[in-house]
Amino acid sequence: MLENLKEEVCAANLDLVAKGVVIYTWGNVSGISDDRNYVVIKPSGVDYARMEPGDMVVVDLESGEIVEGHYKPSSDTPTHLELYRSFSDIGGVTHTHSSYAVAFAQAGRAIPALGTTHADYFYGEVPCTRALSAKEVAEGYEINTGRVIVETFTARDHVAVPGAVVRGHGPFTWGKDAAESVYHAVVLEEDAKMAMATLALNPNAALEPYVLDKHYMRKHGENAYYGQDL
Amino acid sequence: MLENLKEEVCAANLDLVAKGVVIYTWGNVSGISDDRNYVVIKPSGVDYARMEPGDMVVVDLESGEIVEGHYKPSSDTPTHLELYRSFSDIGGVTHTHSSYAVAFAQAGRAIPALGTTHADYFYGEVPCTRALSAKEVAEGYEINTGRVIVETFTARDHVAVPGAVVRGHGPFTWGKDAAESVYHAVVLEEDAKMAMATLALNPNAALEPYVLDKHYMRKHGENAYYGQDL
Amino acid sequence: MLENLKEEVCAANLDLVAKGVVIYTWGNVSGISDDRNYVVIKPSGVDYARMEPGDMVVVDLESGEIVEGHYKPSSDTPTHLELYRSFSDIGGVTHTHSSYAVAFAQAGRAIPALGTTHADYFYGEVPCTRALSAKEVAEGYEINTGRVIVETFTARDHVAVPGAVVRGHGPFTWGKDAAESVYHAVVLEEDAKMAMATLALNPNAALEPYVLDKHYMRKHGENAYYGQDL
Amino acid sequence: MLENLKEEVCAANLDLVAKGVVIYTWGNVSGISDDRNYVVIKPSGVDYARMEPGDMVVVDLESGEIVEGHYKPSSDTPTHLELYRSFSDIGGVTHTHSSYAVAFAQAGRAIPALGTTHADYFYGEVPCTRALSAKEVAEGYEINTGRVIVETFTARDHVAVPGAVVRGHGPFTWGKDAAESVYHAVVLEEDAKMAMATLALNPNAALEPYVLDKHYMRKHGENAYYGQDL
Repeated sequence: MLENLKEEVCAANLDLVAKGVVIYTWGNVSGISDDRNYVVIKPSGVDYARMEPGDMVVVDLESGEIVEGHYKPSSDTPTHLELYRSFSDIGGVTHTHSSYAVAFAQAGRAIPALGTTHADYFYGEVPCTRALSAKEVAEGYEINTGRVIVETFTARDHVAVPGAVVRGHGPFTWGKDAAESVYHAVVLEEDAKMAMATLALNPNAALEPYVLDKHYMRKHGENAYYGQDL
Repeated sequence: MLENLKEEVCAANLDLVAKGVVIYTWGNVSGISDDRNYVVIKPSGVDYARMEPGDMVVVDLESGEIVEGHYKPSSDTPTHLELYRSFSDIGGVTHTHSSYAVAFAQAGRAIPALGTTHADYFYGEVPCTRALSAKEVAEGYEINTGRVIVETFTARDHVAVPGAVVRGHGPFTWGKDAAESVYHAVVLEEDAKMAMATLALNPNAALEPYVLDKHYMRKHGENAYYGQDL
Repeated sequence: MLENLKEEVCAANLDLVAKGVVIYTWGNVSGISDDRNYVVIKPSGVDYARMEPGDMVVVDLESGEIVEGHYKPSSDTPTHLELYRSFSDIGGVTHTHSSYAVAFAQAGRAIPALGTTHADYFYGEVPCTRALSAKEVAEGYEINTGRVIVETFTARDHVAVPGAVVRGHGPFTWGKDAAESVYHAVVLEEDAKMAMATLALNPNAALEPYVLDKHYMRKHGENAYYGQDL
Repeated sequence: MLENLKEEVCAANLDLVAKGVVIYTWGNVSGISDDRNYVVIKPSGVDYARMEPGDMVVVDLESGEIVEGHYKPSSDTPTHLELYRSFSDIGGVTHTHSSYAVAFAQAGRAIPALGTTHADYFYGEVPCTRALSAKEVAEGYEINTGRVIVETFTARDHVAVPGAVVRGHGPFTWGKDAAESVYHAVVLEEDAKMAMATLALNPNAALEPYVLDKHYMRKHGENAYYGQDL
C-alpha cells in the first residue's frame, strides 16, 4: 500500500544525508497519505546506506498502530503523528539533530529573524518550546514532545513558520510534503548557523519588521512574485 | 541573442554551487552585453542542477523588460540593473547568501580590512549599507536595494572595493565580467570568515594602512607585479 | 593469528578517516581478542592510505610485548592496554585528535550533557581527567594516561559514559568492539561541536535530569525501545 | 634542470589544494636544490588546475634572478629566499592564507601551545612577528617579511618550531623538504582551529610544560619512539 508515498518518504530521508544534516541514523522524515489516515515513516535505527522504500513503515494516524512494515517505526513516531493531527494542512514532517539548530534548542533560545534568508522561509522567529515537565516525560515523552510544539503555536501560524526547536532536543520542521519538510530542515540549519555568527558580531542584531514582511510576502503572499508561475 | 554571454552567465551561476557559496536556488549572477543595452541573468527559483544557458533571461538595461527568455528573471533583477546603470564600468554582478558575509550584513557591520587577504582584493573595508526605510521597501524594494548600494559608494571607489553587504540581507559583488563577480563573492565569504575569527581573538585588530596600500597596489596598482604579464 | 580481528581493527581505523575525525596518521583504534589475552592495534605513524589488515600489530595484554607484526604498535598502546585491563567488558578503544573534543580537553573542561543528542550515547557529562603530574609523565606517560582515565571513572559507570577527554590531549572512547569505539568517537566530536555552540549562545545551558534519563534509557535501559529487536 | 625538484615542488603545491588549505591561487610552496644554489618555486597567480612541473620557476638563491622558467615566480619569492639564506638547514617553505592561522596573524597573536597536538609538531608557541614599519614595507616588503620572521627566531629554534604567522598576513612554515613544509602548514591550520575553540571555552587554557616536553621529545628527541625505525 502507498508505494508512491513510501518512495517519496524514503527519498526524503536519504536527502537528509545528501544535504549533510544527519549522520548515522540520526533524523527521520515522514509523509501522510492523501486521505490523512496513514503516516509513512522511517524505520527506527536502520542505516541510511541500505534503506529502501519497502523498509518504510505505515502507521495509523489515530491509533499509531503499525499497518504495514517489517521494521519498528522511528521512536519519534508519536511526535510526528501529533503534529499531523493538530496541523491538518501539513503533508510531511522532518526531525534532525543538525548542529546549529540543536545549539539553539540546547541553549533554550528561539532562532531570531535576523535577515532576509530567514524571512524568505520563516515569518518571524522559529520558536523554542518550553521544557517538558518530569510528569510529561514520564507519561508519554514522544507524544508530549508533539504537544509542546503544538502548544508553542497556539498564537502562531504554523504555515508561516514551518518549524520549531524543541528545548534540549532539536529541530522539527514540516511542509506540504516530505520533501518540503526536509527542505525546511536544511534551510533552518543554514539559518541557525548564520544567526549564531550574527549574534557573535552583534548581540543586539535585529531585522526591520517591514523587511521581514516584504521578503516573506514576495515569496509566499497573495501577490508573490518570486520563482516561476507554475 | 547573446548566446556567448548566456553561456558565461550560466557557467558563473553554476560556479557559485561548485564553490560552496550557495545552496538550493539561493544566489544569482548576471552579465551585461558589450553595448551595455542588455543584461543576462539567472531565472528566478530554478534549480541549479538543471540550469542551462538557454534558461538565462535577457532584460533591457533601461526598462527592465524581458527581451528574451522562457522564464521570469531573478526577483533581484532590479538591483542588478541599478548597479549596472550607476557603475558604468562593471560587467558582472553576483548576489549570494553565503554564511559569513550574511552574518556581517545581519549584524549591520562592515567587513573590516584586517589583513593582506582582504587587501589583495578590497582596498579598504567592504561597507554595510544603511537600512532601507519602510517607504523605500514599499515603493520598490529591489531597485532601492541597488540605490542604497550606490549611495554607499558616493565617497568610495567601487572598482577598488568591488562589493558591499546590504544590511539585514547579504553580499553583492561585481567585477569586469560575470566570472570575476563570482570570484569576488567567493573571496568575500572566505574573508568574512577570517574576519569573524580574527575579531573573536582580538576585537581591536587592525591592519597598518601602509600594508593595505602595499598589498592592493602590488596586485592592482600602476606598477603591479603580482601574477603574469598577459 | 586473529585475522578476523585484524580486519575489524583495520576497517575501524580507516573509518576514522572516512568520518573526517582524523588527518594524516593522527588517531588509533584497537580491539581485544575474545579470550582477552591479545590486543590488536594500529601501527605507529603509518599512512592510512596504504594500511592493510596485515599491518596491524598484536600485543600481549599483560606484558605489552609484541606477539606478531612487522611494525611497532601505536605509541599510545600502553594507554589502550590499561583501559582493557581495568574495563574488563570493553572490546574496542579509539583515540583521536578531533577538533572540538580536543578543544574541551585543552580547555580542561568536561563535555556537559546539554541535550538529547548527548543523552542518547552518554549518561551524564563526558569527564575531563585531571592533569598528570610531572612524575607521572616522566615515569610512564602513556600507561599513566590510561590510569588517569580509569581514576576518573572511579565513581562513574564506564559503560554508561563510554569516553573521556584527557586534559591537554584529546578524547579516548570505547565500546563493545573496535567499530563501536569509533562510532562513539564520531558521536563525541559532533556532540562537542554542538556543546561549544550551545555554550556560546547560553553559558548556563543545562538539560533537565529527567530528559537525560529518558533518552539514555529509551536506547540503553532494560525496557529500551529505540532501534529494532535483533 | 632540477626536474626532480620541480616535480616535488609542483606536487607539494597541488597538495595544498587537496588538503583544503588554499583556494584559487592563494599560497605557494618552494624547495631548494641540494647544493643550496637554486630555489624552485610556484609561478605567480597561475591556476592550480593546470599547473605542471615544467611551470615551476628556478631562481638563484643569492641574487633572486630567474635562472629558468617561462613564468614569473611567486611575488613572495624574496620571503622564501630570505628564509633559506638564514635557516641553512631547511629544504622547503610554504605560505598559505588558511583561515584560522590567518585569524591569529590578523589578531597579532601567537598560536599558543595548548595541547599535545601542537606539541607533537611545535616545541612552544608558534610566534607572531612584529608589524613591519612603513619604511620596511616601502623599501622591500617581501624581503623584509622574510627578515622579520628570521628576527622573530633570534632566540628561538626554527627546527623545533617550524613556522610563524606574519602579523596582518598569514602563516609561513618550513621543513626538511617541500612536502614537509606543506605538512606543517596543514597541521598548523588544524592546530589554530583547535586553539581558537579552546580559547573560547577557556581564555586561560595552558599546557603543563612537562607535557609539551614529553610529546615533542617522544617524536623528535634523541630517544624518540613515535613512528617506525627507518
